[in-house]
Formats: sequence, structure tokens, C-alpha cells
Amino acid sequence: MQDRSGLALQVANGHLRLLDQSQLPHAETWLAVADVDTLIEAIHALRVRGAPMIAIASALLVASRVEQGDDRRAIFQAIARLRAARPTAVNLMHAMDGLAADLDTADWQRSVVQAAETLTDTDRALCDAIGDYGAALVGYGERLLTHCNTGALATAGIGTAAGVIRRAHEQGKAIEVWVDETRPLLQGGRLTAWEFGKLGVPYTLIADNMAAAMMAAGRVDRVIVGADRIAANGDFANKIGTYGLAVLAKYHNIPFAVAAPHTTLDPACASGDDIPIEQRSAAEVRGVNNAAGELCWAPADARVANPAFDVTPASLITHWILDTGVFGIDDVAAGVLKSGGRAFP
Amino acid sequence: MQDRSGLALQVANGHLRLLDQSQLPHAETWLAVADVDTLIEAIHALRVRGAPMIAIASALLVASRVEQGDDRRAIFQAIARLRAARPTAVNLMHAMDGLAADLDTADWQRSVVQAAETLTDTDRALCDAIGDYGAALVGYGERLLTHCNTGALATAGIGTAAGVIRRAHEQGKAIEVWVDETRPLLQGGRLTAWEFGKLGVPYTLIADNMAAAMMAAGRVDRVIVGADRIAANGDFANKIGTYGLAVLAKYHNIPFAVAAPHTTLDPACASGDDIPIEQRSAAEVRGVNNAAGELCWAPADARVANPAFDVTPASLITHWILDTGVFGIDDVAAGVLKSGGRAFP
Repeated sequence: MQDRSGLALQVANGHLRLLDQSQLPHAETWLAVADVDTLIEAIHALRVRGAPMIAIASALLVASRVEQGDDRRAIFQAIARLRAARPTAVNLMHAMDGLAADLDTADWQRSVVQAAETLTDTDRALCDAIGDYGAALVGYGERLLTHCNTGALATAGIGTAAGVIRRAHEQGKAIEVWVDETRPLLQGGRLTAWEFGKLGVPYTLIADNMAAAMMAAGRVDRVIVGADRIAANGDFANKIGTYGLAVLAKYHNIPFAVAAPHTTLDPACASGDDIPIEQRSAAEVRGVNNAAGELCWAPADARVANPAFDVTPASLITHWILDTGVFGIDDVAAGVLKSGGRAFP
Repeated sequence: MQDRSGLALQVANGHLRLLDQSQLPHAETWLAVADVDTLIEAIHALRVRGAPMIAIASALLVASRVEQGDDRRAIFQAIARLRAARPTAVNLMHAMDGLAADLDTADWQRSVVQAAETLTDTDRALCDAIGDYGAALVGYGERLLTHCNTGALATAGIGTAAGVIRRAHEQGKAIEVWVDETRPLLQGGRLTAWEFGKLGVPYTLIADNMAAAMMAAGRVDRVIVGADRIAANGDFANKIGTYGLAVLAKYHNIPFAVAAPHTTLDPACASGDDIPIEQRSAAEVRGVNNAAGELCWAPADARVANPAFDVTPASLITHWILDTGVFGIDDVAAGVLKSGGRAFP
């Protein structure tokens, strides 16, 4: 593999390193990822996260294992184990299925390495295209609201929803951004705030439950979020809290956009009902555990529900911002998502 | 003053002590409150909280100062300073205005002490009445959702919204409760979870942004919340996040009730637009600071918005549960809230 580097990803001399996002913004710690166990633990602990990024990191690790001389059977097993590491996000499954298919080619080692490199480089281009298409939607002076982290930490490029926001900022549109903290794992408060701070994008951090009041006060012009999986009918799964924002945006007549690469589309998934939702540990809701420290503020025996994702129905979505263009409900009804966003038939 | 005790309030030998709610559920620490400065700090730091409770604690402190021999001028100043300690909640203002009027009576010392005692004892009865009226609304097996803390910690009695829930539980209605954590100060996760745990009320703790997904899944039958001030037209101010829950409940056709004593009514306030909203410190949103510990997980320079309350319009409310009965939008339109809930004309 050639050397590569991004905000949260490095390949040097064939070795993969990931920025440990669980340590941000307190510490920028890089994690050497040389085996499947390390990466699966990193995915579960959200050291690496974001639907595109976990697919890319997994593919690059597989390529690295190929270069280290693992045999075809070991690579097959690595692919199968990584494929199951995050059930909701579909990019990972797509990427692993692609690599598995490459195992059947004559020169499988070279095919797998090339596929991983192509996936990484393509993701950058997809992010740029999403950013360009999405930023064209954003008007001068708009106050945008986003959820979770969908920036350079979540992709190999500038990001999806956060990439749109960044691009609009770079175009001089004088935007401002509401960043909600995204409990329980605080990807907004820890990661998006950190990224926007580095980029100089003007943002204001709020607790998740403040978004409605900001909308009622007329202080939100547009909501833009990312996706972990988009079904054929336009429904999509994303970080818990996304669905509530979509309902609130609808009620306040605020446009609500989802931004994602076509690799997040799942034409085999008819609707959001078919997307499995990962349940996570009670400890995450009873308190926090991140680089700032670990606290449990609720009763230690508190019963907890902790779905990591929710599903937003197509009826609440104004714009699907893909790398192939911006689509509305009529395009979705006509089947654009089934054909990979039209330009990828 | 006679001795009195409640879950978070004690009067013994004329001295006031309050349970320091900022330390719950980790430690049950009692705070001696002998002067105005201590109580104002306790209100600002939410050591004592809940619209009825801060009014009662303030009145009892004033009574205690009277018994300690403070002169009329000092008592007048104490009342004026306490009145301004929490701008959104109206109970405190009503209580302080009542005491200030008592200063004009001949036997003002006795009047003030009696008024403080009556306020405390009456609040218990008001809570019982709210609980009885509200519990009658709740059907067998309902899954209720509540926000913030409105229980025995927030009043001198069983509470308001949480009192309704407790009463329905005691009536054997086999209810279950979604307790949202209520960022940033976590009154749900720290206080309501603790109270319900002690009472044996079956509850499940969720992050604020999970309520919408639970509603969409058909797992919420009713929302019941408290209030800091109810305007004449039925709009009310309550802990930030209440308004969003009301919009979500409306969207999912889930009944949404506000429960409060008539002391929370503000007939002089025409609508929610006239209720001032307290803004709190950025540090509360950048992290947490409670008995479990202090953490800042966001960038230390993150710009933050932190409104402590929001306003829910009457149009989103199904039931106003007062100590005088349960009212609907027609009753409110007919002016029931202007006359203190009908039974208090």
C-alpha cells in the first residue's frame, strides 16, 4: 500500500494507525492497528467511528494483513469478523463484501490491496462531491443545526453533513452552526466542536434537548445530518436523536437534509423497518467515560435503554444530499436510491 | 416555628436544613441554611430546586430570620433578594410577595412565621390533590414519560408530575416510566431515578434524545411534566427540553399533561412570551459538575447556549393537572387559569 494520511487515518510503510477518537478533544493519541481484534475493539469503543471511516479502516487493515502474508483463509475470516462489527452501518458490509469477492480472483492479494486503496481514495472524492452539492443548497447567513460527528473524523475526506457545512463556510456564506452534544457518547460536544474549532467554523454547542427551543425561536434555518444506512425508500438510520430532530424540523417547517455517499445506500433494504439497531451498554447512559474521565451520576442499578441509532422515515426528509446530486422525495419515489444515486446505475 | 421534615427539607428548633440535591444520588448531605447568602447560592447551584420547593425554603428561611430577631428592614431586604433568585419560577415571587404584605401587619413577626408554615403545609395538600386528580387520568399498564425532577425533592409533599406517577403506582396501575436524564444538570438521571428507585416505581433511564424513538415505537402512552410558571393562556415554562417533548408528543398523538399547584399559575402573565428565561453558565454544557465529579469533555473554549427553561404553548397541552382538578384547552380558553384553577376564585 502507498502511504496515506487523513485527520484520523494514517497508512505508513504498510502499517495502519487510527486517531483514537475516544480520547478527543483532550488528547490526540494514535492507535496502531495491526490485527482484527484491535480494530473490532476500536469500533466497539468508538475509537474509530463514522460509517464511511469504519469501512475504510477495516479495508485498509485487511490489505495490511494481506501484505503481511496472511493466507486466503485467514483473510476470509478477518473479513467476516469485521463485517459483523457494527450491524447498523452498511458501508462496512458493502466494503467487506467487495473484498470477499476479490478473494475469488487469481491475483487476489493484489486485488484486495487495490480495492482497499481505491475505497479510501474514492471516499475523499465522494466527500468533496457531497460538500459541493450540499453547499449549493445553503443560503448566505443560514443557521444550520447538525447532530453527532460527520466530518473528517468520520470519513477519509472532509466528511458528509459536516463536509457540507465546512464547504459552505469556505465559500464565505457566513453560516453559523448549532452543534448538539449527542448524548450518550457526546460525538457532537467532543468531536464536531473540536473539528469546527480547528476549521474556524462558527459554532455554538447545545444540549440535545435545546434544539426544539432554538427552532421555536426562529434560530435554525436548516438541519443537516449524516447516515449509517439509507434504505431504498429513503428511510435512513443514523445516531440516536436524529429522528427527533427530523420531527421537530418538520413541525417548524425547517428543511431537513441527510448527506451521505452512495456507499451508505442499501438498495437491498426496502425500508427503515429492516435496519437492525445496535443496543449499547447501560453504563453509557448512567454517566460518561471518555478522555476527560469516567463518572456514573445515576443510581448504579438504574435500568437503562440505550439504542445507538434510530430510523428517520423518508416523509420527514427534504433533501437527500449524495455524491451524485441532491434529491427530493419525488426522486426517491422514482427509485433513485435503488440505483445507487442515479449516476451509479 | 414547629418542627417539620420532608424528603429534602427539615425544620428543627427553628433552624432550616436542606438536602443538598447537587450531591444526589451519591451522598445525602444536609445543608444548614441560616442566612440569605447561603440560600441564594444553594438556589443558583441547584442544591435546592423545584418551583414549589424554592418558594417554601425561602419562606421558611425568612421565618427563621424573624425568629432570630432580624428587624423589619432586614426581613424586607431578605425577601427582596430571595424574590430575585430564580426569575423563571413564579411560586417564589408569589410566596415572597405574600410575606412582604405580611410585613405591613401589626403583629408582622407572627404573621410571617405563620405564613411560611402555612405555605409548607399547604404544599403537601396541594401535591396530594394533584396526585389524586392526575392518577385518575392514568390507565392500567400505561408507559409514562417524564422530564426533570418534580417529586418529593421539588416540593414539600409527594411532588407534582412525579407525584401523579407515584400515586398511580401506589394504586396498583402497573405503570412503567421513561425517565429522561435532563441535560445539562441531569435532574432526571440523578434525582428522579433516585426517587423512583427508593419508591419502587419501575423506571427506565434514557438520554433526552431517545424519547422520540420510544414514541415512534409505540412505547410511550402519556407524557407528564411539571412547570415553573403557567401563564393565563395556558402556556407554561419548564425545564429546557419540555417544549421538544410536547412537539414530539403532539406528532405521535400522545397525551401531554402539565401538573402543578395553583401557586405556579401566574394570571398576571398573559402568555409564555412574557416569561423570562434564565441563561446559565457555559461550563454546564461543556461537561458536568456534580457529586460524581467534575469533567469538561468539550473544547474548553467552545461557545455555548444554555437556556435553563423553555416555553410550551397551550396548543400542545392535553391536560392541565392542578390541585383543583384536571382541565382541558376549553377550560383554559374559558379562563380557568386566570381564577387560580376555579376552586380558588
